[in-house]
Amino acid sequence: MATETYGKNINVDEMLEWFASFGQSDSRGVTRLLYSSAWIEAQQALKEKMEEMGLTPTFDRVGNLFGKLQGTEQNTKTILVGSHIDTVVNGGKYDGAYGIAAGLIATHRLFQQYGRPKKTIEVVSLCEEEGSRFPFTFWGSKNITGKCNLNDIKTLTDSEGISFLDAMKRSGFDPSSYAPPVRKDLACFIELHIEQGKILETTNNSLGMVSHIVGQRRFDIEIIGESNHAGTTPMHLRKDAMNTASYLISYINAKAKEIDPQLVATVGKLLATPNVVNVIAGEVKMTLDVRHHKEEVLDHFCAELYSYIDRLADEEGLDISISKWMDAKPIKMDESLTALAETIAAEKQLPFQAIVSGAGHDAQIFAEYCPTSLIFVPSKNGISHSPLEFTKKEDLENGVEILTSLLHRLAY
Amino acid sequence: MATETYGKNINVDEMLEWFASFGQSDSRGVTRLLYSSAWIEAQQALKEKMEEMGLTPTFDRVGNLFGKLQGTEQNTKTILVGSHIDTVVNGGKYDGAYGIAAGLIATHRLFQQYGRPKKTIEVVSLCEEEGSRFPFTFWGSKNITGKCNLNDIKTLTDSEGISFLDAMKRSGFDPSSYAPPVRKDLACFIELHIEQGKILETTNNSLGMVSHIVGQRRFDIEIIGESNHAGTTPMHLRKDAMNTASYLISYINAKAKEIDPQLVATVGKLLATPNVVNVIAGEVKMTLDVRHHKEEVLDHFCAELYSYIDRLADEEGLDISISKWMDAKPIKMDESLTALAETIAAEKQLPFQAIVSGAGHDAQIFAEYCPTSLIFVPSKNGISHSPLEFTKKEDLENGVEILTSLLHRLAY
Repeated sequence: MATETYGKNINVDEMLEWFASFGQSDSRGVTRLLYSSAWIEAQQALKEKMEEMGLTPTFDRVGNLFGKLQGTEQNTKTILVGSHIDTVVNGGKYDGAYGIAAGLIATHRLFQQYGRPKKTIEVVSLCEEEGSRFPFTFWGSKNITGKCNLNDIKTLTDSEGISFLDAMKRSGFDPSSYAPPVRKDLACFIELHIEQGKILETTNNSLGMVSHIVGQRRFDIEIIGESNHAGTTPMHLRKDAMNTASYLISYINAKAKEIDPQLVATVGKLLATPNVVNVIAGEVKMTLDVRHHKEEVLDHFCAELYSYIDRLADEEGLDISISKWMDAKPIKMDESLTALAETIAAEKQLPFQAIVSGAGHDAQIFAEYCPTSLIFVPSKNGISHSPLEFTKKEDLENGVEILTSLLHRLAY
Repeated sequence: MATETYGKNINVDEMLEWFASFGQSDSRGVTRLLYSSAWIEAQQALKEKMEEMGLTPTFDRVGNLFGKLQGTEQNTKTILVGSHIDTVVNGGKYDGAYGIAAGLIATHRLFQQYGRPKKTIEVVSLCEEEGSRFPFTFWGSKNITGKCNLNDIKTLTDSEGISFLDAMKRSGFDPSSYAPPVRKDLACFIELHIEQGKILETTNNSLGMVSHIVGQRRFDIEIIGESNHAGTTPMHLRKDAMNTASYLISYINAKAKEIDPQLVATVGKLLATPNVVNVIAGEVKMTLDVRHHKEEVLDHFCAELYSYIDRLADEEGLDISISKWMDAKPIKMDESLTALAETIAAEKQLPFQAIVSGAGHDAQIFAEYCPTSLIFVPSKNGISHSPLEFTKKEDLENGVEILTSLLHRLAY
């Protein structure tokens, strides 16, 4: 049972500072890569913290840490709440950690005020989501939901050549004793997370009730023109891949705006050849990232784009090829869980709105497995994956408050 | 005096093959950098060739090689004809070499047919034009015209760390005995060169009588927007530097076409930051190269561009800066020399046209010093600075023919 120091006034801001002390870099950023020493220290310290707060901690075979508040009813399923403990390299102190901290504080407050719930609540610190150490994402949630196992990672190594299996073993989770840690007893999953965008900041809302996580398609586009002398080739005789790329980038941006306000399309990477001041670019390779929460909107955009590319190649007399190398389907969050969160927010007069998540989260893995809810708090200037990540204390507290009430309605 | 082997039917194509044997690479390209062993071999062999062809060869203090056909009149000025012996790395066999070969063959034919001229003719193999070994261009023509001296190159080194002065000394031109090799006795300079563009090929003309060498301005453009998450930042909240760059590139191309058919503007180099598929580009740096033979046209284009940049930065809410780091003025060729060449071409029914040179040539250095004429022959597909450089034998011969007649009118 928790001591008085973990009473009602437990401070989410302070808890996030405490989290950030594991893996803190000189630049005030946080680096907590899967199975690294900072990660091990964080999970071990969190295990102790859970115990202090009255929860029963357990690790599963891959390093997911669960803190259980046992319900009084027999054979009930578990309400799981949490997020991921790992970070990107030199990330912020909110991404992932906030969802765990909020889960811990909410559960603790409920226990303090109402005692043991009818239904079991577990706070989870998922071992990995970012894919920042090894080229594999959602290792934690995918193990819990049976979407991956040891075979998926057995050939992977990190940038220093350390294998996934070795790293696992060194951190105390010996792959030789691996068995899929699938949880068949989940009633639902609830995740709080920072928005990583600036919609909530712009609309001045404290909470975003996520309806969908977007589908995402990624493409490589290659434009082959003719590299020529910048001085001796008149404009009308050019096949300038850079100029054609400029038409295409302008089109992509304009079309995304035109089709749907929630559609986003980004040309983030561009490489020209030979990329020299006095030579017309003969070749441009660029990427395209398109996201929306409805497949039909993505289909519509892509159909328009393909037909524009054909026209453009024809008009400009260049070759343009486009190839899709990623196609992640949109994921819908649980409607009744989300509706319940909205009802509570309205009752409490907390400023909220429905929102679509443009980024991926553990919630998208759980959503295909059990009823799942994802709730956002604002990100200052939309910044994430940076030491500049920041969310106001008031917003952090509003998140904890909605989560506490939601858990109360679900578990008591 | 030349032997029968250098009679009327001397073959320009074969002479270019012979030139290309000095510095030939595996890929059939030619690399003949200033003061390199290939360059030394070429100049020494050419010296012997000049002697065989009845010319009196002399090197000046920097390695320019002159082959003189002494005129019969006393105290006449010299008609200089030629081009540069150096090449870019893995260049073609026509750029530079053709102007020397054409000068040699034309002079030799005249001597064979008409004997010694009234006015002295000299064929020059200029030591350096490309700036491919050291960061300095027109070392040959600038020395002859007194536009540079040893002070300009004394701190320069090549990519291997060899100093200009050392390279000079090792090739037999000891800088300690340097004196400015200025030629005060030049009547005029005539250069034949490949076009390095595809205007002549497109219009099916064999000869281009150059009226001007373009002025050239170069700029760095920097666009500073906001780097953000490609998934979580709605289109209307973005400050996407790549998208803004696309508007600017499209504008530059459209405006250049609109203002004047001979204006060329090129964005050849672009670097985006962070240049990652799923992050909105926060910054784009790009270059701009603008060329025309009239200052007022360049001024007009730049004024329009500056005002567009201001409007664009305003509309898009980004910072755009532009800075000019090169401003070379347009150079006019001698009108009467060019008119004479055109009259001859018309008489001989050789297909010709007036043309503007979009690239720099030794002729631009001489044009500010003495009456100068520059004549182009076509480049297949406009390709130069490549082993794929090619000009048809018929066009090469037409160039030699016009040069022969021009020298005949001027010197006999």
